[in-house]
Amino acid sequence: MTASSVAQTTYVLTLSCPNRPGIVAAISGKLAELDANITEAQQFDDRDSTVFFMRIVFEVAQGRTSMQQLREALAVLGNIFSMDWALHDRSVKPKVLLMVSRFDHCLVDLLYRWRIGELPIEPVGIVSNHPRDVFADLDFYGIPFHHVPVTKETKPAQEARVLDLLASSGAELVILARYMQVLSNEMAASLSGRCINIHHSFLPGFKGARPYHQAFARGVKLIGATAHYVTRDLDEGPIIEQDVERISHAHTPDDLIRKGRDIERRVLARAVRYHIERRTIINGSRTVVFTT
Amino acid sequence: MTASSVAQTTYVLTLSCPNRPGIVAAISGKLAELDANITEAQQFDDRDSTVFFMRIVFEVAQGRTSMQQLREALAVLGNIFSMDWALHDRSVKPKVLLMVSRFDHCLVDLLYRWRIGELPIEPVGIVSNHPRDVFADLDFYGIPFHHVPVTKETKPAQEARVLDLLASSGAELVILARYMQVLSNEMAASLSGRCINIHHSFLPGFKGARPYHQAFARGVKLIGATAHYVTRDLDEGPIIEQDVERISHAHTPDDLIRKGRDIERRVLARAVRYHIERRTIINGSRTVVFTT
Amino acid sequence: MTASSVAQTTYVLTLSCPNRPGIVAAISGKLAELDANITEAQQFDDRDSTVFFMRIVFEVAQGRTSMQQLREALAVLGNIFSMDWALHDRSVKPKVLLMVSRFDHCLVDLLYRWRIGELPIEPVGIVSNHPRDVFADLDFYGIPFHHVPVTKETKPAQEARVLDLLASSGAELVILARYMQVLSNEMAASLSGRCINIHHSFLPGFKGARPYHQAFARGVKLIGATAHYVTRDLDEGPIIEQDVERISHAHTPDDLIRKGRDIERRVLARAVRYHIERRTIINGSRTVVFTT
Amino acid sequence: MTASSVAQTTYVLTLSCPNRPGIVAAISGKLAELDANITEAQQFDDRDSTVFFMRIVFEVAQGRTSMQQLREALAVLGNIFSMDWALHDRSVKPKVLLMVSRFDHCLVDLLYRWRIGELPIEPVGIVSNHPRDVFADLDFYGIPFHHVPVTKETKPAQEARVLDLLASSGAELVILARYMQVLSNEMAASLSGRCINIHHSFLPGFKGARPYHQAFARGVKLIGATAHYVTRDLDEGPIIEQDVERISHAHTPDDLIRKGRDIERRVLARAVRYHIERRTIINGSRTVVFTT
Repeated sequence: MTASSVAQTTYVLTLSCPNRPGIVAAISGKLAELDANITEAQQFDDRDSTVFFMRIVFEVAQGRTSMQQLREALAVLGNIFSMDWALHDRSVKPKVLLMVSRFDHCLVDLLYRWRIGELPIEPVGIVSNHPRDVFADLDFYGIPFHHVPVTKETKPAQEARVLDLLASSGAELVILARYMQVLSNEMAASLSGRCINIHHSFLPGFKGARPYHQAFARGVKLIGATAHYVTRDLDEGPIIEQDVERISHAHTPDDLIRKGRDIERRVLARAVRYHIERRTIINGSRTVVFTT
Repeated sequence: MTASSVAQTTYVLTLSCPNRPGIVAAISGKLAELDANITEAQQFDDRDSTVFFMRIVFEVAQGRTSMQQLREALAVLGNIFSMDWALHDRSVKPKVLLMVSRFDHCLVDLLYRWRIGELPIEPVGIVSNHPRDVFADLDFYGIPFHHVPVTKETKPAQEARVLDLLASSGAELVILARYMQVLSNEMAASLSGRCINIHHSFLPGFKGARPYHQAFARGVKLIGATAHYVTRDLDEGPIIEQDVERISHAHTPDDLIRKGRDIERRVLARAVRYHIERRTIINGSRTVVFTT
Repeated sequence: MTASSVAQTTYVLTLSCPNRPGIVAAISGKLAELDANITEAQQFDDRDSTVFFMRIVFEVAQGRTSMQQLREALAVLGNIFSMDWALHDRSVKPKVLLMVSRFDHCLVDLLYRWRIGELPIEPVGIVSNHPRDVFADLDFYGIPFHHVPVTKETKPAQEARVLDLLASSGAELVILARYMQVLSNEMAASLSGRCINIHHSFLPGFKGARPYHQAFARGVKLIGATAHYVTRDLDEGPIIEQDVERISHAHTPDDLIRKGRDIERRVLARAVRYHIERRTIINGSRTVVFTT
Repeated sequence: MTASSVAQTTYVLTLSCPNRPGIVAAISGKLAELDANITEAQQFDDRDSTVFFMRIVFEVAQGRTSMQQLREALAVLGNIFSMDWALHDRSVKPKVLLMVSRFDHCLVDLLYRWRIGELPIEPVGIVSNHPRDVFADLDFYGIPFHHVPVTKETKPAQEARVLDLLASSGAELVILARYMQVLSNEMAASLSGRCINIHHSFLPGFKGARPYHQAFARGVKLIGATAHYVTRDLDEGPIIEQDVERISHAHTPDDLIRKGRDIERRVLARAVRYHIERRTIINGSRTVVFTT
């Protein structure tokens, strides 16, 4: 748990397993044995499902225990405790595929955060159902752009094309940055757990189309946005992050759309950050999010 | 628009009417003519419905124009502009009837605000479907308590009893301060526009029973409460005020209920304050709320 | 107070004057006489200073009363009531001069809002004490860029150059979008009331340099940002808008800086919007902000 | 880390020590050895001070390891790691002494939360510089009331009396629930770390007297409240919790005071909850607060 002058590699370990005594002791003991220093640790004991969740950040001096050795040791523990686990080297930036329709505020925001080094991702592609000239004012800084128009007839083929792009680019995460095409059940299922969507309402209120118009019609006094993992059920995926802003009777649907842009972009950016920092673990229809 | 050393009576005028030119000029001209000084004025021009809404606070030196004279002048304007209007003397505290079930946090909060002079109301009765000894720890400071137990069979009779209490007490407003009995359609309709309910969710999410358990199951990251006017449709009345607090995966339904108490009591207190300061006007299924 | 099928010109009138009876009646009467339909009106009666403030939005059918005629009528009223007033045609986009140092998040955000039509401004210049290549990644969409480096010796000359740019460009507003040079007293005074600064703390806490490091050292649980008019006293100008976000003990100064970027850009954007929609009136060391 | 059908005793262990490898492994290993099941654990590695902080909640089956045995084992670890630590049985309600002046909203709120079982404390006394009849409307439910008036001359004697009350009552925590007397340096020092104060401003803004009037004069757009541990320096103690609400130009100092009551009571209640749940550890002039 201390820093030293030797260069360190930082790892993030996330895990979940049936709860039983001794998990923390076993893991922290093993990490100590492997000369790993824990710098952050968060855990959650779900009393309902009796599942145990943990996120551990630790450092290993370069030249000591290798990632391969860590994985082997964790595999042993994983078997003992029936553990789902993942180990990430924090210096490796996750590859992401961005999907967008006409409204580009979330895309522009994510690209800005990436460009100034705030968001440690590697964007490997931008997919849109609109052509490149819709984004004529935007510099994509060399990120490949793919125009993938979708009609009822072409949807299966075009979704297959996106999955191909995903595979060929090595992206581990798809971000639906206001991508307004409804995914097929098959596509949604195949992206399950590795795709984050931003919905422009405070779910579960105002599912479906034109949520700001719905919110206006209902006369709510706060509007919101919701970032969630994509699952088969539209707008029903595990929620990662939500936020709201106050509105009044004097705000029109256009005002709500304008204010919503601010909420959407910050909610999506936070959710992406939580994901790539390995702070999120899916827990059935909900999420565990280990924030600071 | 100025204060003077002469004692002043302060009035609040609220109105709505079909929008057309000249309303503000006519009203402000008439008030000037009657020696009334406007100290606050707020208006809202609903472009959808083309209805115009206004709230005016004005002062009249005591001994000058009487309330009767004001009403007569407003009646003339009301006819010209097809205006719904109401005039209140701000020094008269509105009589309210409070209804509560087992959970008393909203009731206790409203009584506290009343007792220290923060909320200028006159509570004329407390109605509960639970007996007085459920509230044994509470001092009701002389406010009459009415035990009105409700079963399926007795509901019509007991609702009639509440309406009688309302009439005989002269209360203009019923506050459902976590009153957990569903009102009959008839009762709801007869209280329409003069009854405020606090619902323990961020509507339209989680209507109906046990909203905190619903919120927990859905895995939302913020919970809320909603104060609304009662109408025939349960949980569909015009919303007056809402607020939220952040929660995490580590919060149990009991934690949500605990945090919810704080949200509910402040949301209800704000809504009641807006109502008795005549800041709210119902606009179809929504409200106009002229906040500061 | 109503819309018609004839093309309308929309005006915003803002005014302040010593409070006395009859102001609203006089203005609304005069506007009615001039065939102007009031669509929004907000007023504030400052009981401390006995100054009256008002903002009125009204429409005039094109071909009817001209701006010149409106100004003449208002000049008469202005004399009668000793009124400071300003009349703006809402279709004319205010010219603004943007000033920035190395951190460009506020600049990028304002340019984005302008580009998509959210913020009706006309940027006429970008001034920085850093050279253009610091912003190599940014497209300025043809807005002239001026590199105005500042040293202790050159400050008077360079400030004069900025004032020249301001005059020659016809800009009515200077926006200090994280411009980190301290203005001289003379410069601050000459920009008084027509320059908005974003300070990266919740004023009056943490004035001066490195506010996020100050906030970290003090151990506050919320950080904020403040947009204010520039006056002679650094960080003491009238506040237009503030906002905050929650932090914890686990956040480093770098985390605060990152979170602060989000707060700063939305606070500055709101303040600029309030200004150009003529919702702000300076009231001594404070502001009146007529929000919706 | 699991619950069983045997009755369990729940303990909360908090600790801080110089950071070095092996702390978590040593503690979790020792707890496993003692048949203690960890149900919650949070840690913080302060990179600045190189101090490590931890909070662990664990269960022990009744009849197994005793508190005495736990303490002995922890004492050994405490020596090895130069650890400050504290062990609390969660079923033991902390005794608290409440101090209040004329404004009783925080006191009433804390007593309500205690009475309904929300706040697991045992109030052992209420101290006020005002006599009992100032609180004539309040039921203190048998909690001893002590009128301790303070003048310049009597302050030393009266502070000694409060310290006596503290000692004789066995209270571990003093809560200044809007107690408006400035403590002497000696008194503040002797209460250091075991006294929570609510200050009615968003510190570090508006220290000292009449903060809402200061806030009004400065024209801020949000007001707040701050709960902090008392230290020798007035208003400079480690902050536990803060919150804010939005205000506008139209709010008077009295409005701020009214809105402030809501902020103060929820901020103080949260801070007290954090303290008694052993979520707070003082870290120099700051706090570590392990929230959920």
